[in-house]
Amino acid sequence: MEEPHGKSGSGLFSKEFLPEFVYGGIDGAITTFAVVAGATGANLDIPVVIILGFANLIADGFSMSVGNFFSTKASHDTYERHKATEHWEIENLRETEVEEIREIYRKKGFEGALLEQVVQVITSNKEVWVDTMMKEELEMAKDQTSAYQTAGMTFISFLLIGFIPLVAYVFALIFKTSTENLFIYSCILTGVAMCIIGTLKSIVNNKNMLQGIAETLFLGGVAAVLSYYVGAVLEGLFR
Amino acid sequence: MEEPHGKSGSGLFSKEFLPEFVYGGIDGAITTFAVVAGATGANLDIPVVIILGFANLIADGFSMSVGNFFSTKASHDTYERHKATEHWEIENLRETEVEEIREIYRKKGFEGALLEQVVQVITSNKEVWVDTMMKEELEMAKDQTSAYQTAGMTFISFLLIGFIPLVAYVFALIFKTSTENLFIYSCILTGVAMCIIGTLKSIVNNKNMLQGIAETLFLGGVAAVLSYYVGAVLEGLFR
Repeated sequence: MEEPHGKSGSGLFSKEFLPEFVYGGIDGAITTFAVVAGATGANLDIPVVIILGFANLIADGFSMSVGNFFSTKASHDTYERHKATEHWEIENLRETEVEEIREIYRKKGFEGALLEQVVQVITSNKEVWVDTMMKEELEMAKDQTSAYQTAGMTFISFLLIGFIPLVAYVFALIFKTSTENLFIYSCILTGVAMCIIGTLKSIVNNKNMLQGIAETLFLGGVAAVLSYYVGAVLEGLFR
Repeated sequence: MEEPHGKSGSGLFSKEFLPEFVYGGIDGAITTFAVVAGATGANLDIPVVIILGFANLIADGFSMSVGNFFSTKASHDTYERHKATEHWEIENLRETEVEEIREIYRKKGFEGALLEQVVQVITSNKEVWVDTMMKEELEMAKDQTSAYQTAGMTFISFLLIGFIPLVAYVFALIFKTSTENLFIYSCILTGVAMCIIGTLKSIVNNKNMLQGIAETLFLGGVAAVLSYYVGAVLEGLFR
């Protein structure tokens, strides 16, 4: 029987990478929008907004994905290092480790001769023994994700969603349309993007959709307001 | 006997929160330095660099920590949701779940009467039963970190380390010193900050110190170069 929460799917566009798409996208939209808001608060020209927006998009998207890569790799390495330590301990501190298995199974409710038989079976196979120590003593689960794939998905999503707050500015520059209300258009576009990504977030977390949207809008809104006022206040100081 | 990898420490400044300090700091330094590099590439004035640097620092630090908060909370929620599902299945699909426990322990090397006795003990205590399903079937470990504490540590670190690339500019503005070579000073200060944070990173990941420093410098360097050239190229286009 299939469990409702079984691990499913593979490939870059399966549900497996939806969390990376969501968190990369949220961060991309929020940081780019914050740059646009800060620059607007400081009354900067449109070309400057676009320059800084793109510089931020590329640099921050790169730094976030590579940071994500190192962090996933570090979590894999930590797991393997602990596993190697357990192997070493089984070889060199055998009695201590046997006692630890006994203690783990005593806590599960085993006792007497049955406990000894269980300890005997577990400690007769090194892989099972180490696996038990990892799960029961260290409470560590192996991180199954690929560092390359999560980092790649984060980068794609960061660029794709992070470009949205800049769309209105780029459009106005290319087609030489009116530059009035550009910030308003950017707010609306970014708001729509955040509603979509908030919906995806609620799917990822299996939560209420309105809550996902509200959380994301709140987060982006506060970041943008902070950025706008820091820009405006500092610009006032320098005048 | 104390294990070399036992979980240790508590409180905001224990080793427990070093990962948040490291990743918050790396991200803070890299994004702020990228803003400085992009603005320098685009030949922007020093007040503009400072305005955008601070706007980015506050907004991005806020968005990163709140994102971190939601993500830790989501991971806790996911764990609890799966746990609730297992509880439900034990109540409503008892035979299937008993068979799953039997299968898990058969794979560990148990058989015959001993296997049946083990299944009997495990399934006689619901907490032990669900705990076994979580660890063995779903391979999920409970995330022990507090969402408030990790988010707080990320924010503090982001602001603290992220301020370093701006120090030279703020100093020049306040003390009205020469504004020549400011970007060079910022590069040096940021480089030193990244060496320190790279060292901390190698402690967190139990890795070679030079590798930690090299990875961090590489990451920050590439992000800054990208940002600088995006700024310079776009500024050239608009002239």
